[in-house]
Parts: sequence; C-alpha cells; structure tokens
Amino acid sequence: MKVVYKERELSRTDLVDRTRYSAFLVSKMCDELLAAGLIRETGLGNSTGGRPPTLLSINPDIGRVVGVHIGTFNTRIVVTDLAGEALAFRKVPSHVEVGPEIALASLISEVEATLAGAGVELDQVRGIGIGISGVLERSTGTTLFWPKVPQWTNVPVKRRFEQRFRTAIEVEDTPRTMALAERRFGQGSQASEFVYISVGAGTGAALFLRDQLYTGADGFAGEFGHLMVDAQGPLCSCGNRGCLEATLSASALIHRAEAAVSQRLSTVLWRLTGGDPAKTSIELIGQAAQEGDRFSCSLLREAGTFLGLGLVGIINLLNPRLIVIGGSLAMAAGRFLLAAVEEAIRDRALVNQATELRVRLSELGEVDWARGAALLVINQALEISVLDRLSRQQNVEGD
Amino acid sequence: MKVVYKERELSRTDLVDRTRYSAFLVSKMCDELLAAGLIRETGLGNSTGGRPPTLLSINPDIGRVVGVHIGTFNTRIVVTDLAGEALAFRKVPSHVEVGPEIALASLISEVEATLAGAGVELDQVRGIGIGISGVLERSTGTTLFWPKVPQWTNVPVKRRFEQRFRTAIEVEDTPRTMALAERRFGQGSQASEFVYISVGAGTGAALFLRDQLYTGADGFAGEFGHLMVDAQGPLCSCGNRGCLEATLSASALIHRAEAAVSQRLSTVLWRLTGGDPAKTSIELIGQAAQEGDRFSCSLLREAGTFLGLGLVGIINLLNPRLIVIGGSLAMAAGRFLLAAVEEAIRDRALVNQATELRVRLSELGEVDWARGAALLVINQALEISVLDRLSRQQNVEGD
Repeated sequence: MKVVYKERELSRTDLVDRTRYSAFLVSKMCDELLAAGLIRETGLGNSTGGRPPTLLSINPDIGRVVGVHIGTFNTRIVVTDLAGEALAFRKVPSHVEVGPEIALASLISEVEATLAGAGVELDQVRGIGIGISGVLERSTGTTLFWPKVPQWTNVPVKRRFEQRFRTAIEVEDTPRTMALAERRFGQGSQASEFVYISVGAGTGAALFLRDQLYTGADGFAGEFGHLMVDAQGPLCSCGNRGCLEATLSASALIHRAEAAVSQRLSTVLWRLTGGDPAKTSIELIGQAAQEGDRFSCSLLREAGTFLGLGLVGIINLLNPRLIVIGGSLAMAAGRFLLAAVEEAIRDRALVNQATELRVRLSELGEVDWARGAALLVINQALEISVLDRLSRQQNVEGD
Repeated sequence: MKVVYKERELSRTDLVDRTRYSAFLVSKMCDELLAAGLIRETGLGNSTGGRPPTLLSINPDIGRVVGVHIGTFNTRIVVTDLAGEALAFRKVPSHVEVGPEIALASLISEVEATLAGAGVELDQVRGIGIGISGVLERSTGTTLFWPKVPQWTNVPVKRRFEQRFRTAIEVEDTPRTMALAERRFGQGSQASEFVYISVGAGTGAALFLRDQLYTGADGFAGEFGHLMVDAQGPLCSCGNRGCLEATLSASALIHRAEAAVSQRLSTVLWRLTGGDPAKTSIELIGQAAQEGDRFSCSLLREAGTFLGLGLVGIINLLNPRLIVIGGSLAMAAGRFLLAAVEEAIRDRALVNQATELRVRLSELGEVDWARGAALLVINQALEISVLDRLSRQQNVEGD
C-alpha cells in the first residue's frame, strides 16, 4: 500500500518489481486492500504486449487528515484527504508570545473551525500532523526549547492536542515537515539523497538519506543553523559567535535592515517602510532588492554567500544529489540568495561531490507546508496498515 | 546468515526475533546453511525454561580472505578466515612515489608472498578487499585523485588486482574500511549512529547511519577534511583557505614541527630528531608531548581544538551516538588531541545533540585496519549468499 501511495498509480506487475514479493503475494494483498476499500482501480495502463494492466491507486476518501504548521509568526492549517490533497486551508497568527497555554488553546479552536468549515466530522479524521519551529523531543512531542520564544520550554504540544482530539497526533520540527512536502509534492520526488534547507525566522535542515528522513540517534539531526561560518561574525542566540543563523536568518536580516532604515542607508527601504523601522519585513527587503536597491541586494547576497559556505560542509560530508532551499526568506528573496549560494559552492565545494548536485529554490507555498505536516499522519497510517498486513501474511505462511 | 555473522553466536529463536521471518522459514534456512557447511553448531545457550537452545555461528574455515590497507606511507596486508580473524600479516612500504604501475605490481607480489607464507592456495581465497587513501570512484575501483601523490590520478586499482587474481576484488577508501573494522572489532559494535574519523596523512570520515555505511549519492560522502574551521588559516591542497586538513593532518603537523626543529623552538624535539628536521615524525611529536615538551603539547592541543570545531558541525547535523577517532595521529598522540576535542565540543556543540554522545580514541591497530579491508569481501559474500537463498525461498513459496 505504501508503494501504491508513493508511485500514485501503478499495476500489479509494477508492484512485484518494486516490492520483490512474489506475484502470488502481491495479488493476494491487492485483493484484500481492494476489498477493504483502501485502494481502488483507476484505469488501464500501457500494454507491453498482452492485456493492458489495471492501474491501482490509494482511495483518498477513506479518511481525512489535518496538517498544522506552527511557525514563529503564523500558523497554517490544512484539511486533506489521504492522498494529501488540500480540502480546506486557513492561516492565522501563531501568537506564540502570549505563552503556550493560550496560544495552543487558540490554535486548537482554529483547527476545529477549519474542520467545521470543511464539513468534516471528528470521527472522519485519521490523525493530526503538527510541524513546529521549536526544538522537539520527538518521542513525546514536547518542545524542549524555542530560541525565539523562551516561554515555550518543555511544552507538551502533542499531549495538548491529544486531550482535545481522540485521534493520532504526530509532531515533528518544521524543516522536516516542509521536507516531507517537498519530497512528495515538490522537487524532491526523484532524489533519494536530498537535503532540504529552510530559511525563515530560523535556519534548519532536513536530511533525506537513502530515501528516508534521517533523524539521528536522539532525533536531533539537521541542526544546520549553528554551523560556524564566520569566526568574527555576530553573537548567536546559542552563545557562540559566527553561526550561520546569526548572519542568515530572517530575524538577523530584518535587524540589519531596521538599522538601515533608521540611519536612512537605503532610500528604497525608507520609502517602502514609510520611514518606520518597525515596518521592515523580509517581503519588503525582497521587494527593495527587486527594485534594484543596493543595500538590500548586498544584504541578501552576503546572506547567500554564508548559506553557500554552510552548504559546502553538507555537500562535502553527505554528497547529496539535490538541495532545495525553502522557507519565508527563500519565498521572498530566493533568487538573490541563490546566485550567491551557487557561487560559494562553485568556489569552495569539492569537485566530485558537487558535479551531479542540483541546488533549487522551493516552489511550494504555505498550503504545502501544512500539507507536509499532514504527511506525518498519512505516511504513518499507510506504513502501519501495510506492515500489519504483511506480518499477518507471514504468520499464515510460516505456520 | 548475515544475522548469524553479526551476532557471532545465536540460537534459532534469536534468529526469528531478529529477522522477523517465521520459525518455519528460519529453521529451513538454518538446515540448508548447516548442510552446506556455511554455519555450524557451537554449543548450547541459556535455557529460558525448556531445552537449552543450540547456538549457531559462521563456519570461519569455508574460505580465506585478503585485506590490503594502502596508506600514503605504508601498506598493511592480512589474510583472514571468514570471521575476519587474522591468520597472517605483513607491513610494507607503499612506495606510492614510484608511480602506480610499479607500486601496484610490488604490492601484488607482497599479497602473493603473504598468502604463500600462510600456506593459503589461491583457490581458497574468496576475495581481496582493498582500502586505499586516495579519492575513489567506487563503481570501478579507480583512484580519481590522491592529493599527496598526483601521479595516482585515474589509476584502475581494482582492474590491476583482477588481472592477477581470479577472485572478487572490492575497493573502498581507508576511512570507510577502518570504520568497518571499528564497527566489527572495536568500539562501534553497539552504536547504529556512529561516525569514524581518521586522522593520518590526511583527514577523513566514515558515517554509519542507521547501522549502514553511508556513501552519498555518488559515493563521495564523508569528506570531512575540507570543512572550513579557520577563515584565516593556511592554504589547503584543495585551493581553499582554513580547511581542517590544512591545520590538522599529520603532514600539516610535521611541517610545523620541522620548522620548529630547524629554528630550535623545541629542545625536546631537537634532541629526539638529533637536530635533523627531516627526521621529524608524528611518533616523535607524540613522544615529545609525553615528555612534557610545550611546543609539541600546544601543537597537538591546537590540532585537537580544530578537530573539535569540525566535529561540532557533524554533531549538530547528524546527532551521532558515538564518534571514534583513529588513524596514525590518534595512535601516536591521541590523548593530547582528545582533551582539546572534548573541550571544543563542550564549548560549542548544541546541548541536545551532545548529551548522549561519546567521543573515544580507537584502540585498534594496523592489523585491524587491514582486517577492515577484508570485511569489504566478508560482508559482501555473506550478504549475497543470504539474499540468494531468500529470493529462491520466496519464489518457491509464491509459486
């Protein structure tokens, strides 16, 4: 079932090739899944001589899933079918600054309102997947630490949702849920060795190695923002100097652009913000760069160079086939970053590691980020049902 | 069979637990392997109530394997049984400087002499595993590039050995073969998320992720020596400035110690080398540090600090459970390095990523490095025989 889902549509013969199970076993499993309504026949494939094969795909209507992407500033909520297609979406402020209790209660109401708006009953919901920007203990779904909002230390996000919803709750950090979306809906769909970089309020990475999300021994793999790229660089929130995140994150750039506005270093930014430093945003920096503002262009170019230096370490160490850069900074000003990133990689990465590498900007948007969170549930649900079936199958054969 | 090999000794019940195959299937496979003489019964295990279970292990005498570890200065050759136990060993100069043709011909004669000395016939040899320090194209076993010896560009090492020996030849880079040895015979045996760092003439890493050697999209993963740790640091052979390898490798340290000898900056080194800078070696720097020589101690401490800074990037990105530092520099002066490495990690690594981490010096020696190369063949041979058997098994059941 997992394979049917991954490939979207394929025949029984394809399934034998992919799973290496016998034709007999595949056929029996497909019959069972069809009988249970979990997959459906969607048409005829191309014949290679004989009768054209029947194509199978997941039945998306056997359940609904919620995806919640909790960012530092905004939360995106989506209701999807089991194929991950969006049925309803809303974007609301995260209000993390009011503290976890009130903010989570408010987000839970927003989830309920989104479901109600889509006409989805709670008992149709197979699960809720949550992506959150803080540092997570994955086993319990608890935020250990959220650098930008210290009140969010040891917040049991998963438990709060479980108390309200009687369904499976999965929690993961946002670079990973965004990477799941990229892998399924975006440019990562063909690369088994793929690194996703998220550049937003903070900077994070998610690693797809041998076609699986790699989480490390304790679930903390992918911390990319604290790679040292400039020993003389600014102090970082982690206490070190010169971390990538301290020079590259949206917060770091806004901080410098605010100073430029108050000191009138950029006439374009001054005009776009109406001279109010508090109005500075990543979107306006991106817009100023589009208009050719030298300050904004060089700010973004420098950020891209540091991002590139950090990526060189990942490229040399992991030799990925594809790097996709996403997040709010990439959405607002990606092309200014990308040119500098590519130059730094050309200058500094080792030749063999970089020859086959492609670096791309994500083309996914905020709805997709929330769909990525929904994939936490969808992938899990399908995995469990196929494993269940397989182990039952094997016991029967072994007895 | 792979599982029997990994666990060294276990019962059929253990096998059912590990493989998740049915008791029926495991029992049938064991009978077949026993009949073929590939595994043997080695005694009785602990009873959990009923009859004590029969323990199974690999029959090490069904073949012989050769391991060749080609370093920049020395080559180590070992003949092993199928459990990887050494039956004969020799260490010879690599003589890479005379060019690949003559050097490889000479190494091939040394392999023949080692086999003859051990009384092993060529038809008993299941394969030859070769670890080599240059940059490799793994698919063809060709060195693409060897920074220290430019004549070794595009040398078909695997083909040269295949022309002489009619047996399986496997070629891999030395950090990976040393890591295989550490995983099987050393401290890596318990950690599925494990990074091996080799610090010798050059600096390399091998990554065990989810219990498997991770090689990247094109086989080039693990290039750790060119991580930038000091933007103001010395020029590196790769053309960049401040790479780890330029400050840390044995060659870099010897270079600085030679200067210290000629400028009489260290009385201890001056005495140990008899005042001849050309006599400077890693072993003598290590010995001088043991004797409390301030120059040598601070040289090694600085190297350890840079190594630690490089490791912080790996720790934050991959969240390994264990890092083992090996290679000739670690053998000669490991404890001076280790203190500085641990301090740098304590100072700079993120807390969650480093809490459960252990950093250890390798306790393996040169014989084990060559045994690691032999494991390339042993692991492969066992994998193929078990896959063969399994797929035959499945076709029978599926028909």
